[in-house]
Amino acid sequence: MAVTSLNKLSAFEVARRIASGETTAVAVTEACLERIEACDDAVRAWAYIDGELALQQAQACDNKAPKGALHGVPLGVKDIIDTQDMPTQMGSPVYAGYRPGADAACVAQVRNAGAIILGKTVTTEFAGSHPGPTANPQDLNYSPGGSSSGSAAAVADYMVPAAFGTQTGSSILRPSAYCGVIGYKPTFGTYNIAGVKAAAHSLDTLGLHVRDIDDIQLLTSVLVNRSLAPLPLPTGGPRIGLCRTPLWDSAQPETKAAVEDAGVRLSQAGAAVHDINMPEAYSHLEDVRILINCYERSRHMINEWHDYRDLLSDRFCAVMETGLGLPYEEYVAGMRMTEDCRQNSDALFEDLDVLLTPCVDGEAPRGLEDGGNPRFAGFWTAIRLPTISLPTHSGPNGLPVGIQLVGRYRDDDRLLSVAKWVIETLRAPSSCLV
Amino acid sequence: MAVTSLNKLSAFEVARRIASGETTAVAVTEACLERIEACDDAVRAWAYIDGELALQQAQACDNKAPKGALHGVPLGVKDIIDTQDMPTQMGSPVYAGYRPGADAACVAQVRNAGAIILGKTVTTEFAGSHPGPTANPQDLNYSPGGSSSGSAAAVADYMVPAAFGTQTGSSILRPSAYCGVIGYKPTFGTYNIAGVKAAAHSLDTLGLHVRDIDDIQLLTSVLVNRSLAPLPLPTGGPRIGLCRTPLWDSAQPETKAAVEDAGVRLSQAGAAVHDINMPEAYSHLEDVRILINCYERSRHMINEWHDYRDLLSDRFCAVMETGLGLPYEEYVAGMRMTEDCRQNSDALFEDLDVLLTPCVDGEAPRGLEDGGNPRFAGFWTAIRLPTISLPTHSGPNGLPVGIQLVGRYRDDDRLLSVAKWVIETLRAPSSCLV
Repeated sequence: MAVTSLNKLSAFEVARRIASGETTAVAVTEACLERIEACDDAVRAWAYIDGELALQQAQACDNKAPKGALHGVPLGVKDIIDTQDMPTQMGSPVYAGYRPGADAACVAQVRNAGAIILGKTVTTEFAGSHPGPTANPQDLNYSPGGSSSGSAAAVADYMVPAAFGTQTGSSILRPSAYCGVIGYKPTFGTYNIAGVKAAAHSLDTLGLHVRDIDDIQLLTSVLVNRSLAPLPLPTGGPRIGLCRTPLWDSAQPETKAAVEDAGVRLSQAGAAVHDINMPEAYSHLEDVRILINCYERSRHMINEWHDYRDLLSDRFCAVMETGLGLPYEEYVAGMRMTEDCRQNSDALFEDLDVLLTPCVDGEAPRGLEDGGNPRFAGFWTAIRLPTISLPTHSGPNGLPVGIQLVGRYRDDDRLLSVAKWVIETLRAPSSCLV
Repeated sequence: MAVTSLNKLSAFEVARRIASGETTAVAVTEACLERIEACDDAVRAWAYIDGELALQQAQACDNKAPKGALHGVPLGVKDIIDTQDMPTQMGSPVYAGYRPGADAACVAQVRNAGAIILGKTVTTEFAGSHPGPTANPQDLNYSPGGSSSGSAAAVADYMVPAAFGTQTGSSILRPSAYCGVIGYKPTFGTYNIAGVKAAAHSLDTLGLHVRDIDDIQLLTSVLVNRSLAPLPLPTGGPRIGLCRTPLWDSAQPETKAAVEDAGVRLSQAGAAVHDINMPEAYSHLEDVRILINCYERSRHMINEWHDYRDLLSDRFCAVMETGLGLPYEEYVAGMRMTEDCRQNSDALFEDLDVLLTPCVDGEAPRGLEDGGNPRFAGFWTAIRLPTISLPTHSGPNGLPVGIQLVGRYRDDDRLLSVAKWVIETLRAPSSCLV
């Protein structure tokens, strides 16, 4: 059996080995730091890293009895999430060197469960569209996607087993799909978002980037405070609705091929796969989501807009101007519409466990300026459903192309169970990736 | 015509007089500060007040052209809301002297519209149930209610025309009812809550304490960014559902009398008043709201719980322990239930403009330890409907007893329009308060 470098282990396996005495928190942290030392000049996934501070945390872990499920597990934290011992700089010179007084709730939760906060990962400017310095670790000439660019890239490049990301449009799923990791956006509100810089409060969702789907179960047990049970596989063949969406014709060939191939092979493996049409009302959801995003963001950021406008990017200023000009009545109508669609979304899942649908337009865009289009994930963010991207396919440049599974509102457990089956099925040795 | 002291004017009237040159921001601010100087040793509504800083803001207003609808209007800010130039101490020694780096969105919005941030008003500990030092200005031997104790008391005592409050249960409406001012909790999410310390994110709502209902319209125009139009009176007799709720029998006589009297007199004045029963499912809403509150609060506060437990009150620790022990599945079931009730609540309003319902159990409790029971307001907070308390009646000790009007989800304009008619009708010269 091949020896896997400690930095390549899943969070689950790190925790298991430390608990059993096979390794130590210091050894794992050192392995992660070595990988960062070797590769981060090129990938630039980290906005802040202090090796000494990380090793102090690891040493403190090794010196005491385990106090939680994440004892000794290094994690990355997107740099819009407050940390009491590291700067939180929001990808913006407005917050250069800013040190909040306390940890965000999620950071305090994982710390209390024994996790090591390895460092802060690059975010686009205020989790918007203006990119940070991060490159795609699969090919440095391509974008990692945004806004959780550093979290996805760091996990993909084996610098850390898991990292926090946030999604207001497709900011967890898109970089995960581009970098080739799993991105999970739970049902809106599942993980506590206190201490996370708001983008648009009706949409902002805290989630995860991982390489191993079981790590979602591990972290969720800490973040929602429930006992840890292994993620079960579905008992029968899952019922999957293949939803191409009205945007299908404009998707790139590799995305169409990934979704079609997944549908065929999952059906062959025993899933009941049926084509379903997106309800007509949903076709407006992405436009409405953009409206809500601009309206809310322009209010959240009114302070920075007035006091530090010259430090904001042109892209950010354009969003602010759009948002400030939107009539309140349009915002209320948009909120009503998304709430109605969410409420009615249960009907979609009456005979289905999950939807299978495109995640991104195609492979990551070339260059670092264009972080890609959020639209395929935006539909589901707008109506708060749980979604996951799985790195099951690749495209013409050899870069990852994710597929997206969408679950019923607040039925995350079923989504994750089916997702585990899907990724195991599509990655089976007989598989022939596109 | 009697001359009204400047500190007794409404925000609307302050803005009008300054705009017309009849008075200045400095004169108004001085009047408010004089009132505070005279009375706040007894009322203790303010957690932080710096007269020099307030006057500097006022002088700056007077030195320049008006830039918004609140030019020169002093406002109070509940002390869980971030201010860049004053401490934000959360009613807790954990945050003694804490100075956040930036204004909360709502503070930045009103500042940008010309408002003077007069100071920070007392909150109960983290907007929970452990009281602050504030007394009820109507009788110092009685509670002002909580958690927005200082905001309600300061407005009631003519120290400031309006103040921000927040509500997670009944924290705007209850102190307003006890102190004798108007309390307004908009539809959840209407005012931007970025920069406000979270209690329970699914419930927390930013709102207002005012003496004059037109001030709600003025402040809303700034906070949602729409043009200012005077609050219209309803065109016909409003359709009012008198909802006694399943808690009616346990309400105190003065609350029953206030609601019954309002029903009779509003009917006589032309409203169509019909008794309605609260839907059976709603009778569990307050229990579910408490569950959601404890669950979410215990996650939001995990940082303080671990690092500063000895500085937390016993009451707060009890909420934390309850919340941390709640199973995730119960929380999800509770969220589902409140969402279903909210979605179905439109049906309640098919033939009604507003509900008329108790606001508080009765008059304010004696002493400062017991801030009163949130239950009559908690139903509606749980399902995010807009509500307003109106100081229309009084009780056996001569203290105010508010009534509550509840509006359709996201139909705040209609609620406010009817509320204006109700308060004008019940305060008419012919009225005979209980």
